Amino acid sequence: MSQSTGSAASLFETIAIVGVGLIGGSLAAAIKRRKLARQVIGVGRDRSRLDEARVRGLIDESETDVTVAAARADLIVFCTPVDRIAAGVREAAPHCRSGTIVTDVGSVKGPICDELATGMHGAGFPSGVEFVGSHPLAGSEKQGFEFADAELFVWRVCVLTPQEGTSQPTLERLRKFWEAVGSTIVEMSPDAHDKAVAETSHLPHVVAAALASTLQHQNAMLAASGFRDTTRVAGGDPDLWTAILLANAESIVASSEKFSESLRALQQALRSRDAVQVKALLTAAKQQRELIAVDSGPSNQ
Amino acid sequence: MSQSTGSAASLFETIAIVGVGLIGGSLAAAIKRRKLARQVIGVGRDRSRLDEARVRGLIDESETDVTVAAARADLIVFCTPVDRIAAGVREAAPHCRSGTIVTDVGSVKGPICDELATGMHGAGFPSGVEFVGSHPLAGSEKQGFEFADAELFVWRVCVLTPQEGTSQPTLERLRKFWEAVGSTIVEMSPDAHDKAVAETSHLPHVVAAALASTLQHQNAMLAASGFRDTTRVAGGDPDLWTAILLANAESIVASSEKFSESLRALQQALRSRDAVQVKALLTAAKQQRELIAVDSGPSNQ
Repeated sequence: MSQSTGSAASLFETIAIVGVGLIGGSLAAAIKRRKLARQVIGVGRDRSRLDEARVRGLIDESETDVTVAAARADLIVFCTPVDRIAAGVREAAPHCRSGTIVTDVGSVKGPICDELATGMHGAGFPSGVEFVGSHPLAGSEKQGFEFADAELFVWRVCVLTPQEGTSQPTLERLRKFWEAVGSTIVEMSPDAHDKAVAETSHLPHVVAAALASTLQHQNAMLAASGFRDTTRVAGGDPDLWTAILLANAESIVASSEKFSESLRALQQALRSRDAVQVKALLTAAKQQRELIAVDSGPSNQ
Repeated sequence: MSQSTGSAASLFETIAIVGVGLIGGSLAAAIKRRKLARQVIGVGRDRSRLDEARVRGLIDESETDVTVAAARADLIVFCTPVDRIAAGVREAAPHCRSGTIVTDVGSVKGPICDELATGMHGAGFPSGVEFVGSHPLAGSEKQGFEFADAELFVWRVCVLTPQEGTSQPTLERLRKFWEAVGSTIVEMSPDAHDKAVAETSHLPHVVAAALASTLQHQNAMLAASGFRDTTRVAGGDPDLWTAILLANAESIVASSEKFSESLRALQQALRSRDAVQVKALLTAAKQQRELIAVDSGPSNQ
């Protein structure tokens, strides 16, 4: 899959990964395995955790001061929770050299890109420093770099959300970077991205959480693979997901209302014991499901 | 897992499997691998399909007349869709010899057991022929004996639903049979079973179908593993599931109302951007999810 590895090998001299958890750790591992940078600096608040990541070979250096890392890197990837990304970028940007690209992996793009687009044209951003949002559709309900996987991004879609003012060379370098770790690139506006993932990722989380909440303790022993799969994402970290859901609340509420309508139609058909209608709704759902049923290729994290 | 295989080897002389699809085929394979019967007769309507199953070694003989198979078997397991089980049992029972046990694998038990309990004390059931409901919590959205798996029942719960009049020796033999294919036995009344699986299996199906229906085509490319897992069961066969959902409609509607309440609470917290409440609900959901999060043992079909 890393068909671009050869040409991508010299893409960046120094990459800083801010937030070395599951995603940041996997990205660092992917970069190192594919030799996409001369060095990878891991940035975080907890020195001893970073040192552990270094011992595991995920990063080359650890740094607790994002401004120090920013001054050395020519690519900075923020892998922190979504509610900390914009502030982090604003802290780091003034210390970047011209030509440095700043991106993130946040699963909500509108609020972050809006804030940073403004910031970029205002004070604090040196000329030649650009922020472009990224969202690799990869992850897991697991947490921590202990679960890092250098192949996490292979076969996955990575959304890039360029804005007015994003330069073509910057977009091209970022695209090559994500392709080099194995992803397929889709370009969208931040808002279009947020509306889409409200439906494909955030609504499923809300629905899975509501479903898990419905389970009565005494029935847990009858929960088999159907229940497990349908609620898997509800095992995700509540702090991370609270930040995500709040950052995209409006679109999620809109999607959840559409979902509630679909649910009510099924409830109504069941109430009236309308076999024809139940079957029609299940058939339509199965056909919709087949839009995304990829049985080969991606590993299901 | 097949700790009972030794003692179970002589449990039955001839087992008839009515309906040789994924479950019936897997059960036949499990019986043959563990040598739990001298012979396995596959019963179905399509002779050529049955012959194919025989060529694959899943069954020893194929039979299109259930009454012929019934006369020879000392265990009959109905693996047909839930809306055909009771009628099939009523057709077969008059031809059974005394001592024959009849069971099924239907995922709804109340309507089947109620109908057959009445039948059993009425005309048509020879004395000494007993029906006891079974529900092995195993399956897949796949269909057909091509996906048969002799280990499908290993580590799974199998619910037995004895009723007033079920004899202890019959229950004991049936228990040994399911244990021999690897399952853990839980005894419940048919109604308690149906209420429980409404929550753990049928509601997830309804929710997954509603969620799949919500997906807009243009967003399908952003559906990643979260959406895939949450909607997986919606890929199941609409005919089979229509029959299941209608047979248990009352309990499913009740469960779905509880689900809708949980969903509304989350929607409301998002609407009011109440981070404390969103996090509290997600935390509660994660804890509920952990009631059933078994990371080892079961293979996730």
